[in-house]
Amino acid sequence: MPLCGKYIPPKCRVYGAPYSICTSRVIMTLMEKEVDYELRLLDTAGRDFRILTKEYKEPRYLALQPFGKTPLFQDSEVKMFESRAIIRYIARKHDDHGPHLYGTNEKERTMVDQWLEVEAQNYNPAIAPAVFHLVFAAWFGKIGDIRVINPSLERLEKVLDIYEAQLMKTRYLAGDFFSLADLSHLPFTHLLINHAGKGDLYSKRPFLKAWWEDIFSRPTWLKHLAKAFPHIYYDPNE
Amino acid sequence: MPLCGKYIPPKCRVYGAPYSICTSRVIMTLMEKEVDYELRLLDTAGRDFRILTKEYKEPRYLALQPFGKTPLFQDSEVKMFESRAIIRYIARKHDDHGPHLYGTNEKERTMVDQWLEVEAQNYNPAIAPAVFHLVFAAWFGKIGDIRVINPSLERLEKVLDIYEAQLMKTRYLAGDFFSLADLSHLPFTHLLINHAGKGDLYSKRPFLKAWWEDIFSRPTWLKHLAKAFPHIYYDPNE
Repeated sequence: MPLCGKYIPPKCRVYGAPYSICTSRVIMTLMEKEVDYELRLLDTAGRDFRILTKEYKEPRYLALQPFGKTPLFQDSEVKMFESRAIIRYIARKHDDHGPHLYGTNEKERTMVDQWLEVEAQNYNPAIAPAVFHLVFAAWFGKIGDIRVINPSLERLEKVLDIYEAQLMKTRYLAGDFFSLADLSHLPFTHLLINHAGKGDLYSKRPFLKAWWEDIFSRPTWLKHLAKAFPHIYYDPNE
Repeated sequence: MPLCGKYIPPKCRVYGAPYSICTSRVIMTLMEKEVDYELRLLDTAGRDFRILTKEYKEPRYLALQPFGKTPLFQDSEVKMFESRAIIRYIARKHDDHGPHLYGTNEKERTMVDQWLEVEAQNYNPAIAPAVFHLVFAAWFGKIGDIRVINPSLERLEKVLDIYEAQLMKTRYLAGDFFSLADLSHLPFTHLLINHAGKGDLYSKRPFLKAWWEDIFSRPTWLKHLAKAFPHIYYDPNE
């Protein structure tokens, strides 16, 4: 701390790649909360943005994240991993600022927890194989396996039917407020719709369509995309 | 409410089977918190305890739990699903009573969230296939597939190395206090060690061994086992 002048607390740090699913979740939460952060780029997949370094498998990183996964998050004394734990932490800490991503009362918080778990336990296992084989495979010059893609999309359709029924009742998943639960769906869904061309799965369900158009067009998400994929997207406000 | 006498609030309800993994998590949390609850038995797997009803696939249940999974939890106006969301709710609501399963401050809560996510995202995917093929297969008169069991156990060993390193630093996963994160590991681990005979994976790692012996021998867990598997276990205190 300088002897005079305003004390500027150190920025929190995110270690990861902005184009990776789990790191996106954390960055998006920080942007929604208007929290200043510093991104320490750890290439996770050897994308053409940068030479693959596999820094996240080096001992000094493993000492902080023993599973060798990103993101890792640091905020003063707090060092933590697991994206859905990190976004809960950020939302609780900055509850007085920006949207109430973790709800405003116990009932809302409970529903955010429920739908965050639904995303992790039901939505992700359904959508992930399709995105891996439709999008990531192409990025790495491979051909996706239709025997993986089709069952994945069939499973996803069933989950989307349940989402449609929920979104008929409430504007967002956990209630009539945008929350961590909605936000958590952005990275994978964006890739399936906009990179794998599977938007019809969403647009044929009217409430799901409205929900997706709403959350996808949040200024923070568009801004994030422009930073994460600068060769494809640009920030409409800049 | 009776016109005279003490008002007795309605008990909360758990819909599920006490021998199922996710329902166990919720029951264990309620027992730790000494919360009175009513169990509405929904047979999930057609065990020999009861004729298989598949009530959890009937429309009246699906109206409450659209994914057709157990447990479902009801507490006055709160109706919710997803075990790790339910146990967070119970721990927050009854924070003033019993062990602080969700920590006593923000830093502890953050670590509980992190290790709950580690359990869901790293531990469970590693251990579940082994338990399905070593334990559940036998229960249903099938033979487990060694091509599933071996990779599952290999993956688990790597996770257990990380747990050993963590438990060298703190007595429990999230710190020096028993939490939702530890509790969440009980159901699957119990089956792998005590029903599949894989205790050596744990006992060869001294800190992991001490942790397991500690959490397995909690009176609430032993009592729960006696209720869930009455033909195998008995309550040592009765």
